[in-house]
Amino acid sequence: MSAPIDTMCENNETLTGKKRRLESGVPSDTGTDETFSGFSVDKILREDTRHKVITLQGKFEGSEDKAVLLLEKRPFDRDSVNKLLSTVTRTKQTLKNDIYSTFDTVPDPAFAGFKTTMIYPATEKHIMKYSDQEVWVVRETPELYNSVTLPSIEASNFSIQWVYNILEKKTEADRIVFEDSDPENGFLLLPDMKWDRKDLDSLYLVAIANRRRMKSLRDLDESSLPLLRNILKKGKLAIKDKYGIPESKLRIYVHYQPSYYHFHVHFTHVKLDPPGSGVLHAHLLDDIIDNIEHDGQCYKKKTMCFTVRENDDLKKHYAEAGYFK
Amino acid sequence: MSAPIDTMCENNETLTGKKRRLESGVPSDTGTDETFSGFSVDKILREDTRHKVITLQGKFEGSEDKAVLLLEKRPFDRDSVNKLLSTVTRTKQTLKNDIYSTFDTVPDPAFAGFKTTMIYPATEKHIMKYSDQEVWVVRETPELYNSVTLPSIEASNFSIQWVYNILEKKTEADRIVFEDSDPENGFLLLPDMKWDRKDLDSLYLVAIANRRRMKSLRDLDESSLPLLRNILKKGKLAIKDKYGIPESKLRIYVHYQPSYYHFHVHFTHVKLDPPGSGVLHAHLLDDIIDNIEHDGQCYKKKTMCFTVRENDDLKKHYAEAGYFK
Repeated sequence: MSAPIDTMCENNETLTGKKRRLESGVPSDTGTDETFSGFSVDKILREDTRHKVITLQGKFEGSEDKAVLLLEKRPFDRDSVNKLLSTVTRTKQTLKNDIYSTFDTVPDPAFAGFKTTMIYPATEKHIMKYSDQEVWVVRETPELYNSVTLPSIEASNFSIQWVYNILEKKTEADRIVFEDSDPENGFLLLPDMKWDRKDLDSLYLVAIANRRRMKSLRDLDESSLPLLRNILKKGKLAIKDKYGIPESKLRIYVHYQPSYYHFHVHFTHVKLDPPGSGVLHAHLLDDIIDNIEHDGQCYKKKTMCFTVRENDDLKKHYAEAGYFK
Repeated sequence: MSAPIDTMCENNETLTGKKRRLESGVPSDTGTDETFSGFSVDKILREDTRHKVITLQGKFEGSEDKAVLLLEKRPFDRDSVNKLLSTVTRTKQTLKNDIYSTFDTVPDPAFAGFKTTMIYPATEKHIMKYSDQEVWVVRETPELYNSVTLPSIEASNFSIQWVYNILEKKTEADRIVFEDSDPENGFLLLPDMKWDRKDLDSLYLVAIANRRRMKSLRDLDESSLPLLRNILKKGKLAIKDKYGIPESKLRIYVHYQPSYYHFHVHFTHVKLDPPGSGVLHAHLLDDIIDNIEHDGQCYKKKTMCFTVRENDDLKKHYAEAGYFK
């Protein structure tokens, strides 16, 4: 449910790994005087000004290997913000209008640090993963689903063995929050990899259906209603029981297109604003049930809008079919 | 369409206003040695770790007036990131696992600055505006719409005179991007205040219907179809004509609940991730047209999910009706 690097950075900060001295110019963990001075930037891979992240591709002096660097500003720390303000080294007013003013503020170096993540040496695949990609909206009619999307899913051979491993409890069994073992209408509920399982305002769980023949929303019809109602009802109850969070604090939705084609439902706290909860990606489970109750065949007949990215297989199939002409 | 402070900071950075020396400890624009050392934090109003913003309430030494401070980390600047890396003063490795490593990196003070916005003196209203508010999900049945939501809208007396001023071209006439003057199916298309009108990847336009008797999605039925289709078709054409952006780059949606109860449609670039484009707030215009074509009365019959915040009038009405028991 998450890429290796995210998992590593978010969940395994205690990992130490093997320490060794790297090539000249590459910072090590043995001293505090090392810098990135030997690094030169070849390309800006991605710029995210809202989240204050920039991703770079470059090289270290004396090496032909590529490196990917992610620079990310740190959030302000509520416990030390008083100290931060009292040790500010410089402040320059940049605007004043009535009661409003703005300042350029330079903190003490103790508060100036940002986080750097390095992938080194990086392959082309890493570089692609961390690069900005063009995004397009696709309006998928039922005809386009059958002629482009479905063949693309079938051709991709994308393995979902890892989902079956979870359902068969070969992996992650210790993470299960709730289980309904009914083969038709049952499901497993477990924390998404992106959630640290501590901060309840960031709660993120996924319900994975036991039933194996539903790839996505497009496969839902009247026969899916008992499963959908069961996930909605028991998922909410389990979260209330285990975490004390009531349904009025939950966003419960399904992705279209999903990242893997085995039916699953996302449960996230309303305070969290996770990627994939936008109107071009997420469908409320409440609405899905409502729509199918109203017309059992609606997801076979509906035009569905979603986004594809430059390097998605689906984008390539739509391009080949002449969709973006 | 935007609050005064946002407008000021985003659009009027050239404003200078009247400069004056403030009380002791309050930073001024006349020197570079001033600091926030006289400021003490009374309360953390809001913490946004994803966007690296923190909002504080506090006082300056020797003054009883309250101040609101917003601290926001700056985005990395693509043009100077090479310089930033070559002048890093200290780097400490915090994790190493195979090709992945992370570092605490301290930049040269020239790159360490963050932005402070001050509202001083601040009223209770400012403090409320910048405070974190609890959020709840409401599942609005048609019965709840009629018994709680509609009376709340009618009681609020929220003036939409400013919308009529735009439609009558008393204000913002120079900002109009496209106009269809038909009184029933026409609309005005103009840039949202949040858009700087320069960066096309952040394109944000709003289409305001000429027709005055539609408060929200709940008022749409078969008779709205010509208007909805007209906005969708001509809005896309106008944006293609004026900005060269094709429909495959546009997210076109309606809010429920809207921030003002006169029917309008949002056109945003897919690369932008604006607040209010999430699944609990936004409804694709394509889906709306589809749904009404399928059942003209669907928005009278449907259960609608949306969020309310602590200080919303609607939240108070739902609480009084016993909804959150």
